[in-house]
Amino acid sequence: MESASFVALLHGPDKKGIVARVAGWIHDNGGNVLHADQHLDREANVFFQRVEWDHPEDPAGAAEAFVAMATADLGMTVRVVPSGVRPGIVLMVSKADHCFHDLALRGKAGELHGEIRGVVSNHADLADVAGNYNLPFLHVPVDKENKREAESRQLAFCREHDAGLLVLARYMQVLSSEFLGAIECPVINIHHSFLPSFAGAKPYHQAYQRGVKIIGATAHYVTPELDQGPIIAQDVARVSHRNDVPGLVAKGKDLEKIVLATAVRWHLENRILVYQNKTVVFD
Amino acid sequence: MESASFVALLHGPDKKGIVARVAGWIHDNGGNVLHADQHLDREANVFFQRVEWDHPEDPAGAAEAFVAMATADLGMTVRVVPSGVRPGIVLMVSKADHCFHDLALRGKAGELHGEIRGVVSNHADLADVAGNYNLPFLHVPVDKENKREAESRQLAFCREHDAGLLVLARYMQVLSSEFLGAIECPVINIHHSFLPSFAGAKPYHQAYQRGVKIIGATAHYVTPELDQGPIIAQDVARVSHRNDVPGLVAKGKDLEKIVLATAVRWHLENRILVYQNKTVVFD
Amino acid sequence: MESASFVALLHGPDKKGIVARVAGWIHDNGGNVLHADQHLDREANVFFQRVEWDHPEDPAGAAEAFVAMATADLGMTVRVVPSGVRPGIVLMVSKADHCFHDLALRGKAGELHGEIRGVVSNHADLADVAGNYNLPFLHVPVDKENKREAESRQLAFCREHDAGLLVLARYMQVLSSEFLGAIECPVINIHHSFLPSFAGAKPYHQAYQRGVKIIGATAHYVTPELDQGPIIAQDVARVSHRNDVPGLVAKGKDLEKIVLATAVRWHLENRILVYQNKTVVFD
Amino acid sequence: MESASFVALLHGPDKKGIVARVAGWIHDNGGNVLHADQHLDREANVFFQRVEWDHPEDPAGAAEAFVAMATADLGMTVRVVPSGVRPGIVLMVSKADHCFHDLALRGKAGELHGEIRGVVSNHADLADVAGNYNLPFLHVPVDKENKREAESRQLAFCREHDAGLLVLARYMQVLSSEFLGAIECPVINIHHSFLPSFAGAKPYHQAYQRGVKIIGATAHYVTPELDQGPIIAQDVARVSHRNDVPGLVAKGKDLEKIVLATAVRWHLENRILVYQNKTVVFD
Repeated sequence: MESASFVALLHGPDKKGIVARVAGWIHDNGGNVLHADQHLDREANVFFQRVEWDHPEDPAGAAEAFVAMATADLGMTVRVVPSGVRPGIVLMVSKADHCFHDLALRGKAGELHGEIRGVVSNHADLADVAGNYNLPFLHVPVDKENKREAESRQLAFCREHDAGLLVLARYMQVLSSEFLGAIECPVINIHHSFLPSFAGAKPYHQAYQRGVKIIGATAHYVTPELDQGPIIAQDVARVSHRNDVPGLVAKGKDLEKIVLATAVRWHLENRILVYQNKTVVFD
Repeated sequence: MESASFVALLHGPDKKGIVARVAGWIHDNGGNVLHADQHLDREANVFFQRVEWDHPEDPAGAAEAFVAMATADLGMTVRVVPSGVRPGIVLMVSKADHCFHDLALRGKAGELHGEIRGVVSNHADLADVAGNYNLPFLHVPVDKENKREAESRQLAFCREHDAGLLVLARYMQVLSSEFLGAIECPVINIHHSFLPSFAGAKPYHQAYQRGVKIIGATAHYVTPELDQGPIIAQDVARVSHRNDVPGLVAKGKDLEKIVLATAVRWHLENRILVYQNKTVVFD
Repeated sequence: MESASFVALLHGPDKKGIVARVAGWIHDNGGNVLHADQHLDREANVFFQRVEWDHPEDPAGAAEAFVAMATADLGMTVRVVPSGVRPGIVLMVSKADHCFHDLALRGKAGELHGEIRGVVSNHADLADVAGNYNLPFLHVPVDKENKREAESRQLAFCREHDAGLLVLARYMQVLSSEFLGAIECPVINIHHSFLPSFAGAKPYHQAYQRGVKIIGATAHYVTPELDQGPIIAQDVARVSHRNDVPGLVAKGKDLEKIVLATAVRWHLENRILVYQNKTVVFD
Repeated sequence: MESASFVALLHGPDKKGIVARVAGWIHDNGGNVLHADQHLDREANVFFQRVEWDHPEDPAGAAEAFVAMATADLGMTVRVVPSGVRPGIVLMVSKADHCFHDLALRGKAGELHGEIRGVVSNHADLADVAGNYNLPFLHVPVDKENKREAESRQLAFCREHDAGLLVLARYMQVLSSEFLGAIECPVINIHHSFLPSFAGAKPYHQAYQRGVKIIGATAHYVTPELDQGPIIAQDVARVSHRNDVPGLVAKGKDLEKIVLATAVRWHLENRILVYQNKTVVFD
């Protein structure tokens, strides 16, 4: 086994002694805590923890043993990942290329704890640039008639490239709940507004119409309800009456890149727990 | 006439030569432009300008003469105010005192181009602190039955103190459209969310529920439609899963103070033009 | 003993099992961890931890017992404070009143985990407003000749009011190293620049001269070297060529209030560890 | 003549009637003001203006005529550029590629009002990626012995590609004052700190050492005094004790990209006037 360090994400009903039990188990098994962060939602009485530890002696079986302890002794829901695991990533895009280039360059620079393996698009525009990054590119036009069949080709592509994460990098189509039910990995989307403001289509037009003084971008996990999934990251920028719709679009592009990259990085570093349609982010 | 400098706010259909005509008129009348800022909404073809000028020779009548020129020659809607005019301000409050203290202290420190002349509240809680600032305090409890009569007492108080601006400094009642029709001055409200997100009641609870990563505050002119008036100023602060509702409330208090004070200051310095339920802010 | 919860701040050479030992001790003594946060400076190999726990059974002696364990077993430097302890605070001011009002109002509103007990100034200007808050006010003019004597009166005032924290809320005199050696509590200062830029006198003039596009404020612990102490909190605001020196001063006042209040609050909540002239802030 | 709109940047001793004379001249010559922004430095009594206007009738000679008027009648220093002019840009880089990719992609996306024509580097690392963007690449190793000769090759490359702007996109060598005297275009540099803090080498190490809570990046015009030129744009990001030097470097990369791109964009849109080692930015 290559890596001897692990990340565990736990959550469940709070009770006395969880922190002591987790730290004690790691110590007793020859490990050493590298980082630990916890959170208690007092209202819901739910305990959350992210713990990363070195496990130099006999790492094989460590994950399973930890899960068994946390489940049986502590009643927690738990996921353990060896720190060295770098999941495959598939990007979905349409015509806009700014988030695509941003993620592809971060991938090449080693900033992401994962590997971009392919690109799916409903347009052919980005085929060449995907090629420049040596990324397989699947062009699947989507319309009302062919949606079911198009999605099954997209799904096959994700499976073929062993996607552990699907990233909608300004993909301008809604994924069906059938697709979301079938894909076996999380899906992260960037919405070009400060959700819940301006959900749905043409958010910069909506923002201009309302005359807001700050615009934003929101990265969230995709759920069947459009733009309603758990929010991971948001950022904002000041605007004024001088910014018309193209001006808002231009300002927004830099926000979208940063916010989406942040969310993808946090997800790949196993920093996010989802609970009650919200996220706990151990950053 | 004490002051010899003026601020004009103009807007109307764009046409060639407006900037030249305004600057030329000021120059020909012995004045000197101190500041000038303009904006062209290309989509609506509307021109906006704020110009401030010294008018040392014969200032009496300058305002009227400027208005006549801008109306007749340029077809503009125009308002001219001598720079020295400091309107009276009435504050409306409920129980929360943070925006009240903030504005009262800024008033005392000379940061506002106006004079706070009185305080209206539906609760008696802030009577004593208003007294510490030597501000007349009107306590008018408001409920469904007495709303009409309560509002007429509020209105009388505003008139008595010659309010040129009414500021809702966390006043937790909705003003009726009758009141808004009768009050003859602008009304600025601070809403404790990043509008249009979380309009209406209990915005921090709504924000907590949705799991947003950034909260905000919004100052806007009050119109009969609740929380739908033209937005003047907004600001935001980062939050995380660690912030429960009281934590959001505490963070939000500092935002509300800054945003409301900014909007009030801009308004009093005649920096704001309202158009199509949006603001042009010449800051 | 009124309170049964404690905060411990530990730091020292890292070694295996510290987290487990601390959590285990608390659990074995009938306690429950409420919050725990740790940090490892890998370069210096120093471990830092803040842990807050309920200690319902037999709290008397808990602090001493914890200190003994952490010192003897773990080799840590440790400080334990019952959560309920609210230290006395003395403010030092000169003529500017914005930070003074801000802290006094936060104190009254219960936002500070401590109690403001008195005000020392080298000017008489704020005597009346201190009186409005019912705060004892010591006016001690300071010049080169009387500095030693003036400082001994200031020191006596701090002792008399049992200051656990001294806050320089825009106090415009340098404290001698003798004073700093004699005062037996931490001293927090607000510097009106983004340190290390523009240390020393007239920072807004320096910032204007250099033409920076962002100004800042810095709260730091005071050490004998002027403006060189450990930085606790900083914040910034955008400025432009339109902001002259009085404009920078006005913008800066809001920064100074927020930054100083943040630092004071963190300190009083025992969130800060100082190490190698830097701070670890468990916020 | 292709373009019939112009941008003029003026500055000089303030006097009455400048705004009226400029607007009047444009109107009398058949033009129409599109944007106008002015600034008065009251301390230095210097007036600054940026004015952009359509000049549909007889545009040939308009620039010269405007300059003649502004110089002779108003005593201003003035520069007039047809709006359509898109200067050539040469980038200087070393090994880091983030600012290079960012500018190259913005250039391709049409976000810059200019054209990137070539890349100069003291290392060969980015030769291939420059090739992917079809940009000529000059590799000139620089050391103490060959600096004079290396700089003359760099200079020749800039002239050959008709550089109207030279951008140091993380170029890690100091340019000599001879080079700066000989290059006939402005030079913009990105410094990876919040100047004037941490000028010189290894700013992130310096920032880590000092324990600041906010880091920054600064774009400035290059002058012979290292890191002392007029500041164009700055931005900042929060950091904490958790960020070690590599963490600061990673955070800083996103800042550097945004700040440098902003400065380059403003410069190419003729929005910047330099005066007394400071900038007036009409954004």
